[in-house]
Amino acid sequence: MIMDFQDKLNAYRDEINRSLDNILQIQEPKLLYEPMKYIIEIGGKRIRPILCDIFYRMFEGKKDKVLYPALAIELLHNFTLVHDDIMDDDDKRRNKPTVHIKWDLAVGVLAGDGVVSLAYKVLLMEKFSRSDQIINIFTDGLLEVCEGQGFDKEFETREDVTEDEYINMIDKKTSALLAVSSKIGAACANASDELINVADQYGRALGIAFQIQDDYLDIAGDEFLLGKTYGSDVQKGKKTYLYIKAKQKLKGNDLDKFDEIISKENVTREEILQVKDIYEKNGILDDTKIEIARRIDIAKNAIEVLSENYDTNELKAFTEYMLNRKF
Amino acid sequence: MIMDFQDKLNAYRDEINRSLDNILQIQEPKLLYEPMKYIIEIGGKRIRPILCDIFYRMFEGKKDKVLYPALAIELLHNFTLVHDDIMDDDDKRRNKPTVHIKWDLAVGVLAGDGVVSLAYKVLLMEKFSRSDQIINIFTDGLLEVCEGQGFDKEFETREDVTEDEYINMIDKKTSALLAVSSKIGAACANASDELINVADQYGRALGIAFQIQDDYLDIAGDEFLLGKTYGSDVQKGKKTYLYIKAKQKLKGNDLDKFDEIISKENVTREEILQVKDIYEKNGILDDTKIEIARRIDIAKNAIEVLSENYDTNELKAFTEYMLNRKF
Repeated sequence: MIMDFQDKLNAYRDEINRSLDNILQIQEPKLLYEPMKYIIEIGGKRIRPILCDIFYRMFEGKKDKVLYPALAIELLHNFTLVHDDIMDDDDKRRNKPTVHIKWDLAVGVLAGDGVVSLAYKVLLMEKFSRSDQIINIFTDGLLEVCEGQGFDKEFETREDVTEDEYINMIDKKTSALLAVSSKIGAACANASDELINVADQYGRALGIAFQIQDDYLDIAGDEFLLGKTYGSDVQKGKKTYLYIKAKQKLKGNDLDKFDEIISKENVTREEILQVKDIYEKNGILDDTKIEIARRIDIAKNAIEVLSENYDTNELKAFTEYMLNRKF
Repeated sequence: MIMDFQDKLNAYRDEINRSLDNILQIQEPKLLYEPMKYIIEIGGKRIRPILCDIFYRMFEGKKDKVLYPALAIELLHNFTLVHDDIMDDDDKRRNKPTVHIKWDLAVGVLAGDGVVSLAYKVLLMEKFSRSDQIINIFTDGLLEVCEGQGFDKEFETREDVTEDEYINMIDKKTSALLAVSSKIGAACANASDELINVADQYGRALGIAFQIQDDYLDIAGDEFLLGKTYGSDVQKGKKTYLYIKAKQKLKGNDLDKFDEIISKENVTREEILQVKDIYEKNGILDDTKIEIARRIDIAKNAIEVLSENYDTNELKAFTEYMLNRKF
């Protein structure tokens, strides 16, 4: 079953990529459309459109798949990446230079704005009986992502971020768009508000698991596959799940060492590995893995109610797939 | 009549400002909502919502005014300003520090994104029989503004920009949102496609006049009232209407001097005044005033067809008002 799912997933991902390619023809001005196309071609796992489609089909949407709203969500996600890369001054994404590095700052800002415009344009290409609700979900999601990014920025100058504050931040910054994906899939299939609520709960729990996993992989993941600067969270002193756990658990020398490295302007590779060791020997990597699994369980439980009336096998396979990523 | 119009205009502008103030309550995260509120409070003439409302009432919309779509357009406009200020690295707007200067680059990018999200949220607050069309007009306008900004950026590295290319650029960068304002006003009043087309023609002609006037005022306007760096276009070597005319008309010493100053990294106030003199004595300031008047006439002619069936007095007063601004 998992194998079948992987094939299906690859086929749909290829279709998403072909469709994005069709939508993003290079037009004038090239200085806008070339970086927009570059952003999209850098790729990604296309998880959000896939999730949208799975919910659409699970709730028995009238067509064999949902396409334009799914593409719109992927575009919206890519918009957030370009602007986040500027805000975080990241120079690599998926082993390629980020837009503001390959071109310049102005082009980075503008290309992001172009992608969000295009996202709305694509969202409006297909009409559904619940189109009003779909556009509202989309827009609320966009604003929530901005709020999440705002909290993340605020946390940069604070050392006392609590676990609850951190969870609230990633709920907005990361979960919101996964919840948008599942909810819009459901809404396109004309699902009831009750079912859309289940989609929301699932998307949010999955998103939290996903973001904590991102924090984890930044230091414990495969360095090459990561495709961005290894240990970038440590370098920037980001308030990640691991940071917050470290602040709760560390004592003595380990705490001193951790504080010293995390507050440095320039962190060496050696020091990142020291932080990883500190995380490892104090059980923080294990704590994190446990928390990821717990959040995935919450996501699984959220959709349990659907099993009676709908075929949830694919969604379950998707959930496993999300848990098993290595980068 | 003009006096009455001025009173009406002030009253509606006050209402727009009160409504924007209501919409933009400071919420968490403050690092997002405070700069968003700051952007909106810097103010402006609120021309776009006023234009939207004038078209709505002229085409006999059912309510006494159109509010939410008008506010959404003003927000969209403010979004473009914040990101433009970043792209152009402008440090002042209306005599106040721009967002990325008062806070930082990341906050500037993020606050702009927040404002565009809010623009859609506000647009969706009120339902009209032609809501689909309204959202499409809004979205197409947003993408067009991005295209205009892209052309503007491309022109920075080109010296051979033609008058046609310049007009196409400002048609997208500036006219698009004025056309969005008039068209959405018309669409909210449930006007026919034919009338919406008239609204589009008017808004575009007005926008071109308005942008050429902006170019003119940057060097010939009142320095304090301008509220931004005096002669900033010359400082940046911007391809303005005056630049293009200069390249067509100047010869000998004037051309050499102009080329020398315009290509400098740092331009002094003295040199800006020299460029102004060159513009003046070669008739370029006069040419520009004539072109502004010609474009305003095109706008006036576009709405002539409406006079038989609709009361166009207010729109005519608005057109005069736009022509008479000094900053």
